[in-house]
Amino acid sequence: MADASLLECFDNPEPHRDYLIEHVAEEFTSLCPKTGHPDFAQIAFRFVPDRYCVELKSLKFYLQSYRNDGIFFEAASNRIADDLATAMAPRWMVVETQWRSRGGIRTRVRVETGDRRHEAH
Amino acid sequence: MADASLLECFDNPEPHRDYLIEHVAEEFTSLCPKTGHPDFAQIAFRFVPDRYCVELKSLKFYLQSYRNDGIFFEAASNRIADDLATAMAPRWMVVETQWRSRGGIRTRVRVETGDRRHEAH
Amino acid sequence: MADASLLECFDNPEPHRDYLIEHVAEEFTSLCPKTGHPDFAQIAFRFVPDRYCVELKSLKFYLQSYRNDGIFFEAASNRIADDLATAMAPRWMVVETQWRSRGGIRTRVRVETGDRRHEAH
Amino acid sequence: MADASLLECFDNPEPHRDYLIEHVAEEFTSLCPKTGHPDFAQIAFRFVPDRYCVELKSLKFYLQSYRNDGIFFEAASNRIADDLATAMAPRWMVVETQWRSRGGIRTRVRVETGDRRHEAH
Amino acid sequence: MADASLLECFDNPEPHRDYLIEHVAEEFTSLCPKTGHPDFAQIAFRFVPDRYCVELKSLKFYLQSYRNDGIFFEAASNRIADDLATAMAPRWMVVETQWRSRGGIRTRVRVETGDRRHEAH
Amino acid sequence: MADASLLECFDNPEPHRDYLIEHVAEEFTSLCPKTGHPDFAQIAFRFVPDRYCVELKSLKFYLQSYRNDGIFFEAASNRIADDLATAMAPRWMVVETQWRSRGGIRTRVRVETGDRRHEAH
Amino acid sequence: MADASLLECFDNPEPHRDYLIEHVAEEFTSLCPKTGHPDFAQIAFRFVPDRYCVELKSLKFYLQSYRNDGIFFEAASNRIADDLATAMAPRWMVVETQWRSRGGIRTRVRVETGDRRHEAH
Amino acid sequence: MADASLLECFDNPEPHRDYLIEHVAEEFTSLCPKTGHPDFAQIAFRFVPDRYCVELKSLKFYLQSYRNDGIFFEAASNRIADDLATAMAPRWMVVETQWRSRGGIRTRVRVETGDRRHEAH
Amino acid sequence: MADASLLECFDNPEPHRDYLIEHVAEEFTSLCPKTGHPDFAQIAFRFVPDRYCVELKSLKFYLQSYRNDGIFFEAASNRIADDLATAMAPRWMVVETQWRSRGGIRTRVRVETGDRRHEAH
Amino acid sequence: MADASLLECFDNPEPHRDYLIEHVAEEFTSLCPKTGHPDFAQIAFRFVPDRYCVELKSLKFYLQSYRNDGIFFEAASNRIADDLATAMAPRWMVVETQWRSRGGIRTRVRVETGDRRHEAH
Repeated sequence: MADASLLECFDNPEPHRDYLIEHVAEEFTSLCPKTGHPDFAQIAFRFVPDRYCVELKSLKFYLQSYRNDGIFFEAASNRIADDLATAMAPRWMVVETQWRSRGGIRTRVRVETGDRRHEAH
Repeated sequence: MADASLLECFDNPEPHRDYLIEHVAEEFTSLCPKTGHPDFAQIAFRFVPDRYCVELKSLKFYLQSYRNDGIFFEAASNRIADDLATAMAPRWMVVETQWRSRGGIRTRVRVETGDRRHEAH
Repeated sequence: MADASLLECFDNPEPHRDYLIEHVAEEFTSLCPKTGHPDFAQIAFRFVPDRYCVELKSLKFYLQSYRNDGIFFEAASNRIADDLATAMAPRWMVVETQWRSRGGIRTRVRVETGDRRHEAH
Repeated sequence: MADASLLECFDNPEPHRDYLIEHVAEEFTSLCPKTGHPDFAQIAFRFVPDRYCVELKSLKFYLQSYRNDGIFFEAASNRIADDLATAMAPRWMVVETQWRSRGGIRTRVRVETGDRRHEAH
Repeated sequence: MADASLLECFDNPEPHRDYLIEHVAEEFTSLCPKTGHPDFAQIAFRFVPDRYCVELKSLKFYLQSYRNDGIFFEAASNRIADDLATAMAPRWMVVETQWRSRGGIRTRVRVETGDRRHEAH
Repeated sequence: MADASLLECFDNPEPHRDYLIEHVAEEFTSLCPKTGHPDFAQIAFRFVPDRYCVELKSLKFYLQSYRNDGIFFEAASNRIADDLATAMAPRWMVVETQWRSRGGIRTRVRVETGDRRHEAH
Repeated sequence: MADASLLECFDNPEPHRDYLIEHVAEEFTSLCPKTGHPDFAQIAFRFVPDRYCVELKSLKFYLQSYRNDGIFFEAASNRIADDLATAMAPRWMVVETQWRSRGGIRTRVRVETGDRRHEAH
Repeated sequence: MADASLLECFDNPEPHRDYLIEHVAEEFTSLCPKTGHPDFAQIAFRFVPDRYCVELKSLKFYLQSYRNDGIFFEAASNRIADDLATAMAPRWMVVETQWRSRGGIRTRVRVETGDRRHEAH
Repeated sequence: MADASLLECFDNPEPHRDYLIEHVAEEFTSLCPKTGHPDFAQIAFRFVPDRYCVELKSLKFYLQSYRNDGIFFEAASNRIADDLATAMAPRWMVVETQWRSRGGIRTRVRVETGDRRHEAH
Repeated sequence: MADASLLECFDNPEPHRDYLIEHVAEEFTSLCPKTGHPDFAQIAFRFVPDRYCVELKSLKFYLQSYRNDGIFFEAASNRIADDLATAMAPRWMVVETQWRSRGGIRTRVRVETGDRRHEAH
């Protein structure tokens, strides 16, 4: 079951500077809460760290914890963004999920948090 | 026949935040009102939901209802945008249709609705 | 309704030589006989003509006649191959259909007719 | 000979809204006025219509009327933009020509007309 | 748990002809039996049917039944080939699995069954 | 008007060896004999020269001579192959024309001449 | 030896309008002044002409005049921009050179001249 | 061991102008400080030089000096940016590292230094 | 230092069948024995196992053991093929190395071992 | 001037085995003997070495020696194949030159030498 406590952080090695970190997880899978069929997504995290950075392996474990959860695209995207924002409180962050086509329609959800004066690309 | 009543919505799970949803329907087809020949398009919907989000399966059925309708590119694009805007009243939306080449010319139509202060990409 | 009588032929302008003609129709659509939902395919015809060549516009009309027919991938592919073989009796022919993904699975069917000594690529 | 009178328009179906129409003609050809050799280009039209939209078939015929004219890249691009602007008086328009390589150099010309407050992409 | 009884077949609509059917399932996932981490693969089935063809939806359910099984690449590929061969006894078949990179190494396994005189591509 | 006398040859610099020459002309255009509308093709020539090689500039002029001729795809392909075969009598040759999509169908024609024991790729 | 006097201009056919011309020369080569080995680049020119436009053939000859000159990437890029600016005094111009990889590192240099209020893309 | 003293500079040949230099090193490798396994990255440097430009060969040697160092993505990116900024004091600079996928997650880090009024792309 | 004893094998789960396994290692690096500079390659292994299959993690460690060895392309390719052939005695195997460009020339080496009657692709 | 004496060889490290070496030189340039304009090509060498392998740096110098020579495509391709065959007497070799487009026509020449029983790909 999706478990935010799996997320671990380490100290930002350069807190005096605004800089961008992007992680792209290419192998996310969860279940459709209606049909029980698997959904597949790529999830990108782009953020300007403040005091903490998310540790990569813990991010992988956290994302794997959705494997057998039923959750809608919009809810998953917002929840993942909230969990990351809580864990590392970045100055600015975008979480972008891209879901494989269902019924000939593919979906992308983009959630932004924090202060846009720190935005970077 | 194209039927806006097929569109169904569900409550936006995160109405307190401006975030982007994009659906790309890759298999739209209608008829040319002049020649009766089929036209084919990809249609992208990008919007910031307010109280409602469009339900994916109902969006698929709505788009399928154009299959045997004769309608011009410009009219179809504006009508689809209006139907979606009526159904879910998003804070901001772009509907973009890309039509396969006819006589060596391919066409794209882009309709924007709502308030640009909520714009997202 | 699918109608083989729409196919028209013209005399092969060079019957003394084995040569290859390939037509690729990128916009085929029919219906799933189980669910009624539209299916989309690209269909390639590769053949060595004997006395006749299929006329392009008539091929387009013939393929359009499947638009509202319910038919399975395997049956459609074999029937189209049979109709073409009857209409122009090519020395050798391959009909290859490539269907857009359904439920995360995309399908290709390849039917070959005639005499392989005339095969060409 | 290039003939602007071939251009026909129809009434904009949605004049109350600024929206973008793009037509991309992939098969333009004219002659080099110096050498008489053929030139080949792709031409994109992006515009926000006011009262009129250009009719697609008439646009095709208009572009075909350049087939045996000798005209330089820069002159053709400006003339085509002027002819379209005269025919349909769009609120804003870009005409962009992309010419195939000559002597190892490929060329693009981009002409913009109208009021940029209506600009769209 | 992987369950071959989920596979269903229908009668080959054209048993008098050797022809090729290819299904490509893009979203297979199972677990690594050593680490418990998820593996992801694309699986292609190419076969010449004899009396039966595998039904697409049942193939999807069968592949989904591996979701929480721990199984090595080589074993999964051979087992899937054996289950399909048992279910529909094709004249000739290739099952090809392509696994996403692990530790910078990506793997492909290709299992062939049946009689090569019926081979097709 | 298409004029085979424009083709010029030079002596094969290495007649003691079978080797392959390929020319790909990317900008062929002629007219549809039915509608008068322009057709566009890419034409590839692959041959093993015997005593002569076709001179590149003359090949360009020869292909340009089709610009205002009405001719069908199949006839053009066979005629071009015959003209080249007459002009340079290669040991083996393939002429392959690839025509841009008309009505959603694109066409390729492949004509082979000479002795396949000299075939090369 | 690089020779700016090779550059020739013609009168801008539309001096009353700001419009963009882009030439991309794909086959530039010069020598490394240190090692004498050849360097290869693609050079793009994007400018808004004022009274003059550079003539394409003369641009080709000018670029060819660098063939046996030893010159560093940064110096070549600035000198080419200066020579063009002198020859045709554009309202705005960008010269962008992209050099093939040397020792696993590829380089791009971008020089801008003129008044940015005329900038176009 | 990573050694900033390997970096050498030469005088900017055009200090009176703001212009962009970009170097993309495609073959960076270091070690993971946790596991000792190799990491691989592409590193892009985009800068507007002031008095000095970094010499390409010295940049290659400097990057090679990380080969057997254990260092995290975020730390490496910031350190490389700092070393370059110290060596040549550019008016503006971006260092962007793109790391090959680890555990199905690929990472990008982007560090910007200097004065954004000199920014270029 | 390159160490074949790092290679470990497991029992082929399906020794009664000829089937293909392919591993593609994308991140190989060694040193040029002449200049000491790093070389980078992708290495593909395609084999039909007999009694043993190479274990993936051990293959990774084996390839990493070349990191600080000086070895030529041709020698590395043959040695790696020999080490694998010794470790698992496949029925048939191809080792193919593709080296990144040096001095504008990129290299590929392909070594085949075993009995071609077991060849597969 | 093109100088075959620049080619140097080293002893084949594995003469007891037929294996393939491929070098692809991406930056060849010579002059057109008619017009004096530069030509650009990519040249691939694929061979099975016997006693000798060509040394990479010497191959680079040899190819650079064509820089200011006027030579036709067909002659250059045969001459380069002959020079390599003389220098290292491979068991089998293909030299393939691919020339950038001239007048809208791009050319490829493929010369094969040696004994096809050693052929490899």
